[in-house]
Amino acid sequence: MDTKVVLDTLWVLLAGMLVFFMNLGFAMVESGFARAKNCVNIISKNFIVFAVATLAFLVVGWGLMYGDGNSILGFKGLFFLGGADNSPATGDAYKGVYSAMSWTGVPLMAKFFFQLVFAGTAATIVSGAVAERIKYVSFIVFSFILVGFVYPIIGHWIWGGGWLAQLGFWDFAGSTVVHSVGAWAALAGVLVLGPRIGKYTKDGKVRPIPGHNMTSAMIGCFVLWLGWFGFNPGSTMAADPMAISRIVVTTNVAAAMGALVATAVAWKLLGKPDLGMTINGALAGLVGVTASCAYVSVGSSLIIGGIAGAIVVFGVLLLDKMKLDDPVGALAVHGMGGIFGTLAVGLFAQEKFMPGTTGNGLFFGGGTGLLLNQIIGVAAVGGTVFVVSLGAWLAIKATLGVRVTEEEEIEGLDIGEHGNRAYPDFVLTETIA
Amino acid sequence: MDTKVVLDTLWVLLAGMLVFFMNLGFAMVESGFARAKNCVNIISKNFIVFAVATLAFLVVGWGLMYGDGNSILGFKGLFFLGGADNSPATGDAYKGVYSAMSWTGVPLMAKFFFQLVFAGTAATIVSGAVAERIKYVSFIVFSFILVGFVYPIIGHWIWGGGWLAQLGFWDFAGSTVVHSVGAWAALAGVLVLGPRIGKYTKDGKVRPIPGHNMTSAMIGCFVLWLGWFGFNPGSTMAADPMAISRIVVTTNVAAAMGALVATAVAWKLLGKPDLGMTINGALAGLVGVTASCAYVSVGSSLIIGGIAGAIVVFGVLLLDKMKLDDPVGALAVHGMGGIFGTLAVGLFAQEKFMPGTTGNGLFFGGGTGLLLNQIIGVAAVGGTVFVVSLGAWLAIKATLGVRVTEEEEIEGLDIGEHGNRAYPDFVLTETIA
Amino acid sequence: MDTKVVLDTLWVLLAGMLVFFMNLGFAMVESGFARAKNCVNIISKNFIVFAVATLAFLVVGWGLMYGDGNSILGFKGLFFLGGADNSPATGDAYKGVYSAMSWTGVPLMAKFFFQLVFAGTAATIVSGAVAERIKYVSFIVFSFILVGFVYPIIGHWIWGGGWLAQLGFWDFAGSTVVHSVGAWAALAGVLVLGPRIGKYTKDGKVRPIPGHNMTSAMIGCFVLWLGWFGFNPGSTMAADPMAISRIVVTTNVAAAMGALVATAVAWKLLGKPDLGMTINGALAGLVGVTASCAYVSVGSSLIIGGIAGAIVVFGVLLLDKMKLDDPVGALAVHGMGGIFGTLAVGLFAQEKFMPGTTGNGLFFGGGTGLLLNQIIGVAAVGGTVFVVSLGAWLAIKATLGVRVTEEEEIEGLDIGEHGNRAYPDFVLTETIA
Repeated sequence: MDTKVVLDTLWVLLAGMLVFFMNLGFAMVESGFARAKNCVNIISKNFIVFAVATLAFLVVGWGLMYGDGNSILGFKGLFFLGGADNSPATGDAYKGVYSAMSWTGVPLMAKFFFQLVFAGTAATIVSGAVAERIKYVSFIVFSFILVGFVYPIIGHWIWGGGWLAQLGFWDFAGSTVVHSVGAWAALAGVLVLGPRIGKYTKDGKVRPIPGHNMTSAMIGCFVLWLGWFGFNPGSTMAADPMAISRIVVTTNVAAAMGALVATAVAWKLLGKPDLGMTINGALAGLVGVTASCAYVSVGSSLIIGGIAGAIVVFGVLLLDKMKLDDPVGALAVHGMGGIFGTLAVGLFAQEKFMPGTTGNGLFFGGGTGLLLNQIIGVAAVGGTVFVVSLGAWLAIKATLGVRVTEEEEIEGLDIGEHGNRAYPDFVLTETIA
Repeated sequence: MDTKVVLDTLWVLLAGMLVFFMNLGFAMVESGFARAKNCVNIISKNFIVFAVATLAFLVVGWGLMYGDGNSILGFKGLFFLGGADNSPATGDAYKGVYSAMSWTGVPLMAKFFFQLVFAGTAATIVSGAVAERIKYVSFIVFSFILVGFVYPIIGHWIWGGGWLAQLGFWDFAGSTVVHSVGAWAALAGVLVLGPRIGKYTKDGKVRPIPGHNMTSAMIGCFVLWLGWFGFNPGSTMAADPMAISRIVVTTNVAAAMGALVATAVAWKLLGKPDLGMTINGALAGLVGVTASCAYVSVGSSLIIGGIAGAIVVFGVLLLDKMKLDDPVGALAVHGMGGIFGTLAVGLFAQEKFMPGTTGNGLFFGGGTGLLLNQIIGVAAVGGTVFVVSLGAWLAIKATLGVRVTEEEEIEGLDIGEHGNRAYPDFVLTETIA
Repeated sequence: MDTKVVLDTLWVLLAGMLVFFMNLGFAMVESGFARAKNCVNIISKNFIVFAVATLAFLVVGWGLMYGDGNSILGFKGLFFLGGADNSPATGDAYKGVYSAMSWTGVPLMAKFFFQLVFAGTAATIVSGAVAERIKYVSFIVFSFILVGFVYPIIGHWIWGGGWLAQLGFWDFAGSTVVHSVGAWAALAGVLVLGPRIGKYTKDGKVRPIPGHNMTSAMIGCFVLWLGWFGFNPGSTMAADPMAISRIVVTTNVAAAMGALVATAVAWKLLGKPDLGMTINGALAGLVGVTASCAYVSVGSSLIIGGIAGAIVVFGVLLLDKMKLDDPVGALAVHGMGGIFGTLAVGLFAQEKFMPGTTGNGLFFGGGTGLLLNQIIGVAAVGGTVFVVSLGAWLAIKATLGVRVTEEEEIEGLDIGEHGNRAYPDFVLTETIA
C-alpha cells in the first residue's frame, strides 16, 4: 500500500477518535452545568445521541451528504454506504459515486468514520440547550432527523460540492457546518420547549440555576479542547505536516485567548472570574477558529479567539435577557461563536496558507467578496436549519410531545425518564423549582 | 529504519496507549456502579491491578504466552523478556524465541507493551464482579496469578501458536482470550465469595443496590469505547489502512447497536430506559464484535452488536435470578458477550475480508466447521479458566482469606481496607446493609 | 514532503496532545486531594494556567529558551516566534535562529506546540502546592513569570544549548527541566504563603486534611500516566521505533513499580494501603524515570521506579514534619522525584541505548563524572529557580498580595475568588477550619 495512504489513514482515524471523545466532553460540560436531579437524563442523551447518529448517518446521512447528486443534495449510493467506490484511489483515477470526498487519499471506511463523528457533534450540541425539560424519546427522534437529514443536506451544500461550495463559501472544519447547525436546531427546540420552571420569575428577573458539578464541567472542557486537536487539524484529512502543525497551534492559541478574554470580561462585568464563563470562553475560542484555522496566521487566531471569548460572555447574558433558556450556554458558544467564526474567514483569511482556496479576507487586502459569501452562507444555513428544525420540533410536539410534565420536571428527569438517580448515596439539597 | 516498521510501531504504540486508558474506563464504570462507601477500594483495585499486571507479565507472563514451546505453553525466553529476538526483522528472517509474534514488524518492546495492556484488561474485568466484599490483598494475589500464569497460557493456545490456533479457532482481538478469560475467573471468584450482604433477601427477592455515581459510569463507558478503537483495530499490529479503517467502523457500529438495542429492550422490559443497561449494552456490543471485527461486514457488525445488546439485558436479569451477585454486570458483558462474540465468528465471518484466515462462517456458506471450532474453544477455555481460577480462589481463601468481615462490609471497604473515604466533604445517605 | 518529516510530525503532535491532556490530570489529582470548598478555585487555576502558559510561551518564552543566544539565554527571534526558520530543513542545512531545535525534522509550529505543553506542565505543578490559600490573580501573575521567563531560561541551559548542555548534563524528558523547576517554584510559594489554617496545631501536631474526591484523583492519575506516554517517548521528537518502544516500556514499568512500592511502604508504615500514597507513588515513578527513560534498561527502570515510590512516601511524611504544607504532595512527587530522577541518569545510564549522549553511569562502569554533572545541574537549577521564584513571590506579595483573607479561606475560595460553588446540589459536611 502506498505510504501516503497509510500516513493519511492513520492521521484521519486517530483524529476521528479524538473527535469521538468529544462526546464525553459534551456530556460532562452539559451535565456539569445542569442540576443533579437531571444528570442521568443529560448524560443518557449525550450518550445515546452518538449511537443514534451512527445509525442515521450509516443508513442515509452519508449518502445525502457525499453521494453524487445535484447542488442541493446527494442521491447516489444513498443507503448504507452502498455506492461504488475505489478508495483509496492510488494511481488510478477515482471511480465511484462519492466524488466530493475523492480528494482525500484514505479508504472509504476512514472517510465515513471521520465524517460520522462530525455529524454526531452537531447533534450533541442540541442536547445541552434543551436540557432539563425535554422528553428522552423526543430528543432521540429529533437527533435521528438532524443527523439523518438536516445536517447532511447542509453539509452537502458546503462540503459535498453543493451550491455554497460552488459560490466560494469556506468553512474549514465546521464553524457553520457543525456548530451553527447544532445551534440553530437547538434554538428552535428552545423556543418550542420554553424555559425551565423557575428560570424567569413573573416580575421579569432571571434566576441563576447553578450547575451541579464543576468537576464534571472541567473534565468536559479539557476533553473538548483535546478533541478539537482532532476536529480542526484532522479536517485536512491528510497528514500534511506544515498544515496540521500550524492548525494545532492556531486552534490552541484561539482556545487560550478565548479563556483569558472571557475570564477578564466576566471579572470586569460580574465582579468575579466565574468558572462557567472561563470554560465557555475557551469553547467559544475553539468554535470561533474552527472555520478559519487553516487559513489564518497565529496572530490572527489570537485575535479571533479573543473576540469569541468576549462574544460568549455578552451572548450568555443577552440570551438570558431575551428569555431564551439554554442551561449550558450552547447557543452563545456554538451559535454566536459559529457565526463569528464563519465570518472571521472573510476577515482574516490569507491566500498564502492554503493557495487556491479562500484568497485573502478583508483585513488582508482581499476586499469584501469573501466576506459576502460567508454572510450568505451563514444566513442561508441559519434560515434553513432553523425553519426545518422548528417544523420537526413542532411535529414531534404534536405527536410524541416534547416536554415532560411539571411534576416530573420538579422531581427531576432522572427518576421520571430513566428510573435512576445519579448519586443515590449522597444527600442532596433542594434545588430551584 | 524501514518506513513500514515506523508506521506499524506508531500504530501499535498509540493503539496500546488507548488500551492502557481502558483501565480508567473500567475503574469508572465499576466504581460508578458500586456504592460510595466502597469507591476507594474499587478504584484502588482497578489501579493497582495494572501495576501488578505489568510486573507479572514482565516477569513470566509474556514468556509463557509468546515464548517458543509446545502447544500448551511457551518456555523459551521465559523470564523478563530474556530470550533472543531480532525484531523488527526487516529484510532478515526472524531469529529468536518469540516466533508466534514474528509476523508483526515492530520492535520487541512494542509487542510487549501492546500485549501487556491486553493482559491487564483481563485482570481488571475480574475486579468489578468481586467488588464490595473482597479483601484487597487477596485481589492483588489473584491478579498476579491470573496475569502471570492463567491468561498467558490460554493466550498461548490461541495467539501463541498453541493447540487452538492449530485447530482453526479464531479470535481476532480477544472476545475469548481477554473478555471470557476475565469473566470465567470472575465467576469463580463470585462463587467463592458469595453475594453481598443484603443483595438477596431471605424470601428470595433481589434487592437492587444502585450505583453511587452515574457520572463516573458514563465517563468510564466513553473511555472504554474510545479504548476499543485501540483494542480492536490495533490488533492488526500493523498499520494496514483498509483493515484498520473497516475495523474502526465495525467496532463503532456494534457499540452503537448494542447501546440502542439494550436501551430498547430495557425500556420494554423494565418500563424505563435504565442508564446502566444502556451502558452495559454498548459494552456488550463492543465485547461481542471483538472476536470478529476484522472478519465481518459492517452489516454483520450491526447485527452482532444488536444481539449482544439484547443478551446483556437478559443476562443481567438472569444472573440475578441465579443469585450470582455481580455488582457491575461484568459476567453478562464480558462472559456472555464474550462467548457470543466468539461464536459470531463462526456465523458471520467472510473469507474475503482476511483471506487465508477464518474462511466463511455458517451464514455465508462456510458450513459448521468454523462454528464447531469456536464452540470447542469457548468450552475449553471456559472450563480450564474456571477450574484453575476456582482452585486459586480456594487456595487464597484457605490462606489469606477472600472476604472482609461483616462489620467492614457494612461500614464500607474504604475505611476497612484503606483508611480512606472517597468523599469526606459530602454528607452520605445510609446505604443498603 | 519527505516521509520521515510526516512520520516525525505525526508523532510529535500526537505526543504533544497527550501532554496537553496532562493538564486535566493535574487538575483532577490536585482538586481531588483538596477540599470541596476550594474545588472551583483549584480547577480554575489548573485550567487558566495553560491559557496563560500559551500566551507567555508564545510571546517570549520560546525565544528565550530556543532562540540563538549565549550560554545563559536565547535572544534571537525572541518575540512571537518571529525569527527566521526553514524547518523542516529537509535536504538543506538548517537556516534560522532556533538552532538548538534544528536536530528534529518537524515544522517550527510542531516544535513550538510540543515545547509549549511542556512549559505548561511546569506551571501547573505549582498550582497544587499553593492550593487552598492563594489568590487567583496572584497565581496567574506568577504563572506568567514562570512560563515566560524562569522556565525558558533554565530550559535554555539544558535543552537550548546552554551551559549545562555544554557541561554534559543530561535530562531526557525533564525530571529537572520541568518537574524540579515546578517544584522549586512551588517550594518558594509554599514558604511565602505559609500553611493552611488548621493544618498544624499549636502543640505541633499535623492534622490530616483529606481530599474531597478520590474519584477525581484517580481520574487524574490515569490521565497523567497516559499523558506520560507522550511526555517521555515523545521527547525523542522523532518517530524512532526502537527508542520510542523502549521508552514506553521503561516509563510504564517505572510507574507500576512506583505504585507498588509506595503502596507496600505505606501499608507497612501507616498500617493500611492509603490510596493517596499509591497515586503519588505512581506519579513519583513517572517523574523519577523521566530524565533517564531513554538511557536505561527495563530492569533499571524497574529499580528507579521502585526507589521513587519509596521516596515519595517518606517525602510526604517528612515535609509535613517540616511544616511545609503542600496539599497534594507536589513537592515530594515532582521535587524529590525530580532530583532523584536526574541523579538516576548518573547511576543507571548505559551508553549503548543512545550512543554519543550520556555514556555510562556509575553502576555501569562509567565512573562518577556523569553523576557529578547531574549533581551540579540539580544544584544550579534548584538554587536559581528557588531564589528567583522567592523574589517573584515576595514582589507579588508586596503588590497584589498572595494569600486570601482568613474568612475567605475558612469559607472556601470558590465563593471568595469565583462566586461559584463546585457542588451546589450536594449537602456538605463541615471541613477543617
